[in-house]
Amino acid sequence: MTDYFTLSLDAHRKTHGKWEMRSKFPVTTQAELSIAYTPGIAAVSQRLSRHPEEAYNLSMKGNSVAIVSDGSAVLGLGDIGPEGALPVMEGKAILLKALAGVDGIPIVINAKEPAEIIQIVKAIAPTFGGINLEDIKAPKCFEIESALQDIGIPVFHDDQHGTAIVLYAALLNACKITGKHFENLKVVINGAGAAGAAVAKLLKGIGQNGDVKPVKDVILCDTKGIISRSRDDLNPSKLQMLEFTNFTNQNGTVFDALKDADVFVGVSAANLLKADDVRVMARDSIIFGLANPIPEIMPAEALAAGAKVVGTGRSDFPNQVNNALAFPGIFRGALDAKASRITEKMKLRAAKALAELITNPTPEKILPHVLDPHVAETIAKAVKDTAIEEGVSRL
Amino acid sequence: MTDYFTLSLDAHRKTHGKWEMRSKFPVTTQAELSIAYTPGIAAVSQRLSRHPEEAYNLSMKGNSVAIVSDGSAVLGLGDIGPEGALPVMEGKAILLKALAGVDGIPIVINAKEPAEIIQIVKAIAPTFGGINLEDIKAPKCFEIESALQDIGIPVFHDDQHGTAIVLYAALLNACKITGKHFENLKVVINGAGAAGAAVAKLLKGIGQNGDVKPVKDVILCDTKGIISRSRDDLNPSKLQMLEFTNFTNQNGTVFDALKDADVFVGVSAANLLKADDVRVMARDSIIFGLANPIPEIMPAEALAAGAKVVGTGRSDFPNQVNNALAFPGIFRGALDAKASRITEKMKLRAAKALAELITNPTPEKILPHVLDPHVAETIAKAVKDTAIEEGVSRL
Repeated sequence: MTDYFTLSLDAHRKTHGKWEMRSKFPVTTQAELSIAYTPGIAAVSQRLSRHPEEAYNLSMKGNSVAIVSDGSAVLGLGDIGPEGALPVMEGKAILLKALAGVDGIPIVINAKEPAEIIQIVKAIAPTFGGINLEDIKAPKCFEIESALQDIGIPVFHDDQHGTAIVLYAALLNACKITGKHFENLKVVINGAGAAGAAVAKLLKGIGQNGDVKPVKDVILCDTKGIISRSRDDLNPSKLQMLEFTNFTNQNGTVFDALKDADVFVGVSAANLLKADDVRVMARDSIIFGLANPIPEIMPAEALAAGAKVVGTGRSDFPNQVNNALAFPGIFRGALDAKASRITEKMKLRAAKALAELITNPTPEKILPHVLDPHVAETIAKAVKDTAIEEGVSRL
Repeated sequence: MTDYFTLSLDAHRKTHGKWEMRSKFPVTTQAELSIAYTPGIAAVSQRLSRHPEEAYNLSMKGNSVAIVSDGSAVLGLGDIGPEGALPVMEGKAILLKALAGVDGIPIVINAKEPAEIIQIVKAIAPTFGGINLEDIKAPKCFEIESALQDIGIPVFHDDQHGTAIVLYAALLNACKITGKHFENLKVVINGAGAAGAAVAKLLKGIGQNGDVKPVKDVILCDTKGIISRSRDDLNPSKLQMLEFTNFTNQNGTVFDALKDADVFVGVSAANLLKADDVRVMARDSIIFGLANPIPEIMPAEALAAGAKVVGTGRSDFPNQVNNALAFPGIFRGALDAKASRITEKMKLRAAKALAELITNPTPEKILPHVLDPHVAETIAKAVKDTAIEEGVSRL
């Protein structure tokens, strides 16, 4: 297998970062300088001091998103600090640009307390048209994102909602293949961190005002088993998850939960499931093993045990569930709408638009390729239109 | 006269900001994505978590400077808020790139208290190789900059030191023309804000350990007159200015101070001086009227009244004293040295290097043109070499 670790280290050693600035204004003559900078700039500044909302047109705010991380939950590496997080944020930045033309500005911060992270994001918000929170660990990511919903620009924690949107799209198409009805699904999610909770919430249609029928049942599991009212070890954010999961108050392990389940979503650990665990699921089951780089069960094994559709986080297997299918289009659409927030309905419409890009889903093809240039523009349009419909656009 | 205000507004309306991101890594194939992003990026992140100092090589930190402003003292417009400041910060960013290849990232913040601004800059510091504080009003700019000197990367308030460095260089060359000796100069500075205080400090050689002879006398004036021990209305930062000004305890107005002065530096208001004010100065006086767009005295009038060398802030008169002659090279040199701070000696050497770019100064030519491409590289070399000498480089 190609050693991408060494290739990546070598490539990074040759540059100072993965991106650079390119000026849109020439500054080679005195006249050009007088337009781009003093004295002409005073007119732009004065106008913005009176009409700050015009910053979307007159400044970088209209095309910029800060990618903010404290480095507390980076890839599978854990709490590795801001410097360790920086190359990942730069990677997101160049994807935002390549796929959606958005200028993403990595900002890694040396701050751990939610209150401080909230304060910093609020303070820098005038510069940007959106904030992508990234690789911030649960449960503080919930508190931080929630506290920032009213600051006037979208604040979107990609580890939660990017994954949820793509997974939702994948599931819509998997249902088409299996003939399962979305609203009858029993879904088991293993991993109650940022991604797991957000997937559960989106599948249950929280905050969408009946725009689609939610799935019937979502069972969320953590390392101790099913999250249920019978447990006495749940922190406040896990207690809150009971508001949209496990309405039948099941107890036991993730393996108990799998009995008759239609869908398994793993955001947990390599090799968790065996063939026998798939066999207890409902007929034509749907399995998303998103642990990286080794999924919860290898696709071939799951298919042999009766699964009908299998997705992973990997690019070398069919059906890669990758956030990069969602976040570029989400931010493109939000910037195009000058949106003040990303609503649940905007996420849902993004997911549906993503699913509809595959006109004839097959077990090997339920999602577009992550580098497909049409994905972001399609999602952006859905997000922008929904922002206007929801009254959160400044257009 | 060309209406740069309208031209600038029109030009800004056509873009969303003055700059955009350009990726240095291709991301058009799956293999490229695996190098720029997952899975390869994990190796880079892991390395940085163990060796954060390698962020200078492996991430954007090595070529990036944040341009931070709270919008409290923007151009001549005053406290116009973060959105109003943003186009100015973008202007600095594109100059940093055009003149020195540095990626400057504008960050305007919605925070007014010094303690909060200090906290925010500290928090975002891991992302950047330097911080350019900009358009933050006095006296809080002094407190903020001073509190940030030990955060491990240079924090440089350009309104103070950029102006001081260029003025220092201009004065060195003006002395060559007039035959005045630097260490015998009596200098009157009108305006005790960020720039005035910094000019005074640099001219008096504070913190330089005898690398050059300081000027003999600096008299600093504010709107109430000469800052002296006899006054009872001085705030703490003005009291501190007495540590490096007015050693002869003069009292009175700025016009009293001008008697026998060799040099006038105005960072104050249009049309402050009349010809008679120049006539009381020493023979072959040197006048820098930096008020914009109308200087403290027009060059022709000053020259007719006996001044020998006159500089302004304007590009349409000879001898433009413009920060852009200093800050790009300062940050280029600091990044090249992976410097932890900008010392007084680094500023002074930058000023000397800038002055030496003019081999034969004349009254009409004491400084290079602001767009001269050699300026930044010359200053950068001086700054880098001095950083190494001063033990503040990580090379």
